[in-house]
Amino acid sequence: MTQRIGLIGLGIMGAPMARNLLKAGVPTTVHSRTASKVAALVAAGAAAASSAREVAERTDVVITMLPDTPDVRQVVLGPDGVVAGGRPGLILIDMSTIAPAATRALAESLAAHGMHMLDAPVSGGESGAIAGTLSIMVGGDAAILERCRPILAALGTRITHMGPSGCGQMTKLCNQVVGALTLHAVVEGLVLARQAGMDMAGVIEALSGGAADSWMLRNLGPRMAAGDFAPGFFVRLQQKDLRLVAEWAATVHANLPGTVVTSQLLGVVEAMGGGELGTQALFLALERLSGIGAAQRGPGSAGS
Amino acid sequence: MTQRIGLIGLGIMGAPMARNLLKAGVPTTVHSRTASKVAALVAAGAAAASSAREVAERTDVVITMLPDTPDVRQVVLGPDGVVAGGRPGLILIDMSTIAPAATRALAESLAAHGMHMLDAPVSGGESGAIAGTLSIMVGGDAAILERCRPILAALGTRITHMGPSGCGQMTKLCNQVVGALTLHAVVEGLVLARQAGMDMAGVIEALSGGAADSWMLRNLGPRMAAGDFAPGFFVRLQQKDLRLVAEWAATVHANLPGTVVTSQLLGVVEAMGGGELGTQALFLALERLSGIGAAQRGPGSAGS
Repeated sequence: MTQRIGLIGLGIMGAPMARNLLKAGVPTTVHSRTASKVAALVAAGAAAASSAREVAERTDVVITMLPDTPDVRQVVLGPDGVVAGGRPGLILIDMSTIAPAATRALAESLAAHGMHMLDAPVSGGESGAIAGTLSIMVGGDAAILERCRPILAALGTRITHMGPSGCGQMTKLCNQVVGALTLHAVVEGLVLARQAGMDMAGVIEALSGGAADSWMLRNLGPRMAAGDFAPGFFVRLQQKDLRLVAEWAATVHANLPGTVVTSQLLGVVEAMGGGELGTQALFLALERLSGIGAAQRGPGSAGS
Repeated sequence: MTQRIGLIGLGIMGAPMARNLLKAGVPTTVHSRTASKVAALVAAGAAAASSAREVAERTDVVITMLPDTPDVRQVVLGPDGVVAGGRPGLILIDMSTIAPAATRALAESLAAHGMHMLDAPVSGGESGAIAGTLSIMVGGDAAILERCRPILAALGTRITHMGPSGCGQMTKLCNQVVGALTLHAVVEGLVLARQAGMDMAGVIEALSGGAADSWMLRNLGPRMAAGDFAPGFFVRLQQKDLRLVAEWAATVHANLPGTVVTSQLLGVVEAMGGGELGTQALFLALERLSGIGAAQRGPGSAGS
């Protein structure tokens, strides 16, 4: 039986994901609060629904790709939401990045109505969403994942089952902690290089391939060296993810001192007006902290 | 003309480097304060000298591979040192990791005697020294480097000229900052995973290949997951390098808040008796800080 798919949330990630489902020949019904985003997908072959409830009424599997925990909660449990419109057996795949505890609570609410939920946040960013090469970290029932694997294969290349409900989100939080601190590592090394008057590109080259090597060094290091602070991954969204980490850490009394420092310094970038810059703009905060670069760049500037 | 080479310092790095010079057919005179280390190299074909002065008297290029700044200063400028024994034209290649400012001062002292100096610290560790695959970051005169390149090619595969005297050491400090903070990134992500009760190896697998990927994640992550805290790179030596960074940062009023936190947490590992463990033992300090793992492991233990 062909599964009918719904997708709610047509932002920077959701829209290209819907296009990849359509390209794979999957019948897809979409919904967004923004009519123009729906119209663009209808032109590409999608069906339109006027609410999350209507998406659930018409489909077997509903994918959500939304900014934050309250958005997902509203779309799933609200009066015009997925639970209101869905039948028993419906599968919700939440690909947003939200709190693991909220995810487990949502999965329980759905289960009370005979519905299933996978948490399936992604890494790989806008370019991964467009290319269909996302990494997808999945929490929930393994048998339900197997039923959804053909759909997810249209969106990503690495689909990993991490454990029961919430484990996808938990893995995503680990990913965001390691990513943010690794970026911070590159920033401090390159600020040191710049303050010493060295050629940053030469230092990146010398460090690549050794024990200090990372995706961040190779991909965002050269952007810092070139003064290119365009997103990429927004500072604002990185901060949202690190707030989810902080919430969880407070709950279980975890201490992550490095992550706290990185997040506070990203807060400095936001205070400089850089919330819409790429995360590599952390370089601007550290530069200013060391008294270099400030004269050449105004607050919130996208670079030299 | 065949260059006669001297090598002073036959520790964990210097001894295999001397062996690689001998294997490449380079006549090599060695010196160490420890007679047994000299004897082992003599058995492999090296000539022995009883002092740094005697090494300099008999050779054209002197390599030093010593623990810290005062050791290098003593070996170069001391009464029985390189300057006392060398002729004008002698080249000193210091491959130790020492302070960039001290390096420049030493180069000036040598220049006053008509001698040359390259600072050429390495990354790649003991395994790189044995395999002859070190990365070598060189500061000093480019023409002098070209004369020494055939020798360095017996020791390493990536030889990069970074700029004038001190720039090799400065690049090494950048490398140590990026490496230590990237390691710290992996530690915080994996502590988060463990505290959530997740399989650490599975999380490493899910994160590899994405934006959170790094040499540290791939190489030291699995050791943390396995409870293997054997060196590798000693906590004690990482701390020495981060002290060089702190000295330099204080001099130029640089602020590197992430590096400060990483170094303080490595200080906790030392306080737990773990100075001789590998740097991945940072995991033990973060685990304890979050109240996990402490019951299972005693202070300074090498793991589970």
